[in-house]
Amino acid sequence: MIDFNGYLFVDEYTYMIALDSMKHFTSLTIVPLKLNDDGVDLNDLEVKVKERRFKSQNKEFWAIYYTIPTYHNPTGILFSPTVCRGIVALSRKYDFLVVCDDVYNILHYDNKPQHSRLMSYDTRTDADYVGHVISNGSFSKIIGPGVRVGWLEVPPRLKPQLRHSGIINSGGCFNNYTAGIVGSLFELQLAQPHIARLYAAYKERMLAAIAVLKSELPNTCRFVTPSGGYFIWIRLPDQVKASEFLEYCFEHEKITFIVGSRFAVEEGKGQQFFRISIAFHKKEKLVDGISRLCLALKAFIKSVKHT
Amino acid sequence: MIDFNGYLFVDEYTYMIALDSMKHFTSLTIVPLKLNDDGVDLNDLEVKVKERRFKSQNKEFWAIYYTIPTYHNPTGILFSPTVCRGIVALSRKYDFLVVCDDVYNILHYDNKPQHSRLMSYDTRTDADYVGHVISNGSFSKIIGPGVRVGWLEVPPRLKPQLRHSGIINSGGCFNNYTAGIVGSLFELQLAQPHIARLYAAYKERMLAAIAVLKSELPNTCRFVTPSGGYFIWIRLPDQVKASEFLEYCFEHEKITFIVGSRFAVEEGKGQQFFRISIAFHKKEKLVDGISRLCLALKAFIKSVKHT
Repeated sequence: MIDFNGYLFVDEYTYMIALDSMKHFTSLTIVPLKLNDDGVDLNDLEVKVKERRFKSQNKEFWAIYYTIPTYHNPTGILFSPTVCRGIVALSRKYDFLVVCDDVYNILHYDNKPQHSRLMSYDTRTDADYVGHVISNGSFSKIIGPGVRVGWLEVPPRLKPQLRHSGIINSGGCFNNYTAGIVGSLFELQLAQPHIARLYAAYKERMLAAIAVLKSELPNTCRFVTPSGGYFIWIRLPDQVKASEFLEYCFEHEKITFIVGSRFAVEEGKGQQFFRISIAFHKKEKLVDGISRLCLALKAFIKSVKHT
Repeated sequence: MIDFNGYLFVDEYTYMIALDSMKHFTSLTIVPLKLNDDGVDLNDLEVKVKERRFKSQNKEFWAIYYTIPTYHNPTGILFSPTVCRGIVALSRKYDFLVVCDDVYNILHYDNKPQHSRLMSYDTRTDADYVGHVISNGSFSKIIGPGVRVGWLEVPPRLKPQLRHSGIINSGGCFNNYTAGIVGSLFELQLAQPHIARLYAAYKERMLAAIAVLKSELPNTCRFVTPSGGYFIWIRLPDQVKASEFLEYCFEHEKITFIVGSRFAVEEGKGQQFFRISIAFHKKEKLVDGISRLCLALKAFIKSVKHT
C-alpha cells in the first residue's frame, strides 16, 4: 500500500510543533533545507525541488515550503530581500506553495525591514504573478499566548479553497468568541497600547540579552544577533553537546533552554545548538539568568576539555 | 500514484461539515451506512466493514465509524440500546474506531435515556474491552454557539496519541482563553442556570414544534418524533422534491430549512427530506413558522399533483 501525497520542504531547523501539526493532514515526505545566516540556501532549495517535482493529480500544489522568514524560530534569522526574492522566483518556476509563519514580524528591534513579509515580494503587478505565498499571522505573540487567534493572508486564487474548508466552516471561523474579544480590544483602543507595551518590553529584553551574551558568552560559542522576535540561537563548540550542558545548567543554576535537536528535522542534528527565549522573563531575571548561564557554560566547556 | 489511507464509515445522512473536516486529514474512502429509525443498520455495518477490512501498516485503526448516536444530526434519531451494543460489539470484532459526536446528549425532552452515550456501552469491565469509542463533547450547543470549546473522552490507550498530537500541542489545548472563561462560568455557578434556561427553552420549542407538525403536516409526509436535540427530519411524498419546496416556501413565506441532499453522502440522495432546527427562533416565531410551512407544503403538494 503506497501512502504518498506530496512533499513538505522545511528549514533544517524549524518550529517542530507546526511540522507535527502538518503531519496530521496527509502523508507528506518531509525534506529539510540548508539554512544560512540570511535565510534558506536558495541553491539547496532549487536542487531539492527540481529533483522531486511531479504533477499532482488531486491537489492544487505538489509541494509546500513551510518557513518562518522573519525572526525565524528557532534561529532568529531574518531572511534577506535577496533570499525572499529568490524563494518567490523558485515558487513560481516550480509551482510550489510557500507558507510563511509570520507571527513575530512586527517585533523588530533594529531598523524596521523594508518589507516585513516574504509575501510582499510575490508582487501582484508582476507579469508572471499567480500567487504562491500564504502569510499566517497571530495575536498570540503580541497580545497574549493564550489568545490563539490568528489570520491568514492568501492569494485570491486560494480563497475558494479556504472558504470550502470543512475545518473552517465547521468552527465557523478561527476561534469565534476570542476573535470577538480581540476585535473589541482594537475598537476600544485597548489592544494598541498593550501591544506597544509588549513590544517595548521585548525589545528591551532582547537588547539586554544580546549585550550580556556579547560580553560573557565563551568565545568558542557563536550566535547571529537577532534583529527581532523571541529567540537567540547559540552554537556550542564541537566537543560540547547541548543536551549535556542542559543537564549541567539545570543542576547547577536551575536554568533551562531548548536543545537544538528538538528543532532538527534530521535525527542526530542540532546537538551543538540551543535556543534561548527572551519573551517570558522580565529583563532583570533574564539578564541574571543569561549571565549565570554563560558562567556555567564556561565551567562546563572547561570540564569537557579536561575529560 | 495511489492515494489511500483507510475507510471512514458514516451514516447515509450525517453532519456533512464534520465529514468535510475529516476529509482534510487524509485520503479516506467514505462508505455510507443505512440508517433506520433506531440507529444505524447493524447488518449493513457488519457487511460493509467485513468486506473492506485490512491491516493498516501505519495507523492504529484501519477505519473510523463517525456518528451522532444521540439526537442525530440531521435525523433526530436516538440510537437504541440494542444498536449501541451492536456497534460496540462490531467495533471490537473488526477493530475499528467509533467517533461519537455527543453534542446534544443532555438535551433530552422525553424520558432521560438510561445511557446517554454510546461510549458507556464500551464497558471497561468487559473481558474483551480494549477501548474502541471516542466521545466528542461541546459547550457550543448548551452555552452558546460561538463558544467552540469542547472536550474529548477517549479510552486510556488512545491518550498518548492525543498527547503527542501536533495540532493539540501547537495550540496548547482546545481554545485556551475561551476554555478559561467557560471554566470560570462553572466555578462561579453561572453556567449551570444558563444551561438550565437553554434546556427548558429548547424542550419547550421542540414539544411545540412537534405538536404543530402532528396536527398540521400533510398526512402524505412523515417524521420520527425526536426525543431530544435540535432537529426534526421530515420526509416528503415521492413526487415532491425538497429543493423545489424550499424555493416555493421561501418565495411565499420567507421560510427556509436545509434540504436533505445537503446531508447525503451519496449524490442524488435525500431529495425527499428536509431538516428543521428548533434551536434558533423563540417558541412563538417557531410555531408560527412551522404552521405556515405546513400550509405552504399542502399548497405545494397540490400544485405538484396537478402538473
